[in-house]
Amino acid sequence: MSNVCLVGGAPFSPVDRGYPPRWETPPVAQVIEIDDPADPRLDDFRDLSTADRRPDRPGGRGLVIAEGVVVVERLLASPYPVRSLLGVRRRVEALGELPAPAYVTSAEVMAEVVGFHLNRGVLAAADRAPQPPVERLARHARRLAVLEGVGDHENLGALFRNAAALGVDGVILGPGCSDPLYRRSVRVSMGHVLRVPFATAPSWPGTLGMLRDEGFRVAALTPRAGAANLADAGLRGERVAVLLGSEGPGLTEEAIQAADLAVRIPMSPGVDSLNVATAAAVAFYALL
Amino acid sequence: MSNVCLVGGAPFSPVDRGYPPRWETPPVAQVIEIDDPADPRLDDFRDLSTADRRPDRPGGRGLVIAEGVVVVERLLASPYPVRSLLGVRRRVEALGELPAPAYVTSAEVMAEVVGFHLNRGVLAAADRAPQPPVERLARHARRLAVLEGVGDHENLGALFRNAAALGVDGVILGPGCSDPLYRRSVRVSMGHVLRVPFATAPSWPGTLGMLRDEGFRVAALTPRAGAANLADAGLRGERVAVLLGSEGPGLTEEAIQAADLAVRIPMSPGVDSLNVATAAAVAFYALL
Repeated sequence: MSNVCLVGGAPFSPVDRGYPPRWETPPVAQVIEIDDPADPRLDDFRDLSTADRRPDRPGGRGLVIAEGVVVVERLLASPYPVRSLLGVRRRVEALGELPAPAYVTSAEVMAEVVGFHLNRGVLAAADRAPQPPVERLARHARRLAVLEGVGDHENLGALFRNAAALGVDGVILGPGCSDPLYRRSVRVSMGHVLRVPFATAPSWPGTLGMLRDEGFRVAALTPRAGAANLADAGLRGERVAVLLGSEGPGLTEEAIQAADLAVRIPMSPGVDSLNVATAAAVAFYALL
Repeated sequence: MSNVCLVGGAPFSPVDRGYPPRWETPPVAQVIEIDDPADPRLDDFRDLSTADRRPDRPGGRGLVIAEGVVVVERLLASPYPVRSLLGVRRRVEALGELPAPAYVTSAEVMAEVVGFHLNRGVLAAADRAPQPPVERLARHARRLAVLEGVGDHENLGALFRNAAALGVDGVILGPGCSDPLYRRSVRVSMGHVLRVPFATAPSWPGTLGMLRDEGFRVAALTPRAGAANLADAGLRGERVAVLLGSEGPGLTEEAIQAADLAVRIPMSPGVDSLNVATAAAVAFYALL
């Protein structure tokens, strides 16, 4: 049984406001009750843990999936074209006007479709959108985070959340970084990966030279002795790109050499390091 | 089949160096091969996910469980009396001299005993130890973190890790905080909950008044308008207690009123908040 309720009528239309492309808020939305978990209209949300590992899904590397009211709201406000929503009625109704069909069902049917229990009550699926080239992202930014080897999805998501909170205009992904639009990164970022623009470095460490040419001071965060204390780096007010490596191995020597300076967070003896997203937050606060 | 290898001979003996009590490094250690997952000597490690919910275990609120070489090493260096270890031979041998019996087995038997797959290869179990009274912890500290309502085990663990890295001498747990010695907190803290002393506030918000009497400036971290910018709070060099609330509800009004001042991290518009452990790291960096 499905109950169709047509709220509006016109199709999506893209509006060129640069990268990523934005879409006019479309006046279409349907709220559709579904109680058959096998209904093919729910395929975007089917077996999510498995789908995350399937690059053959629509969107090339997988759909963008948002979980929970807060993150779904950020997806709705983002440039990513929303395909559909799935949720319990109370959560879907809390979202207000919708740009795509919303499938309403029970928590039990949701769990059966996605393959695990969700206590967030609403999901949305969107297609990916083109990312800006690094040059374009850099031209309009004063503060950048540049990542090398940040392969952990949760750390990457947390880093975007901290970047959004602490005034970073964009994130550049060097080699070894994972996909910020992977479902777990989206969730841990509280949806801020959908809001903070990011770009992939076309060369490494060549991109760091390009940022310097563009007027950025590139500051490599590293615990090594000889790095300047963050508080004394004197970078406030400048255009700064903070270069961050993964926990454990840290930045490569060639990345550190390609930076303008190395900075460190003063730490207690006997403590290896902070989590990379936490170290990033301290550096964003101190430098930006 | 079990193969006993006696390395030493004398029993533990407690040495009174204050709170928590310390133990002399005992010269006893046995490395014992076990290949029967039902062996009762492995009971400290049995069904860990379930055991975490069983306050009737030895130690009153459960044992202290350390997972992985780094965290086990911190447990071995801590005041908590180690009862036994369980691991694959390679990991156990990496630990050097041991104060308690170490049971060596295969990864498969370990998984069967603990109830899930561990990729860290070694575990240790210890009894709890008495915590200091707040007065004693405060008397010897210059920098404290005071928590209200931090109920999430992972946030609590991360907060201890950040406290250890950024020079906090102790943590005071107000109402609504979870147990720092819960297995997941120990793991996320990288073992630093075993290193940074903590105490439970005997009254609330009365303990904040006690800290002020003891010479601390109590700074409440809150996003509310009217709070001073962290950078302008002028607390460097003073004895400071940073008061932190949970994400979401934040600090109670009575806790904020009982503090000397309210401080905030300047944040971008449209971003709700930082994770509590991350906000704590920024505040520790800025204030301490």
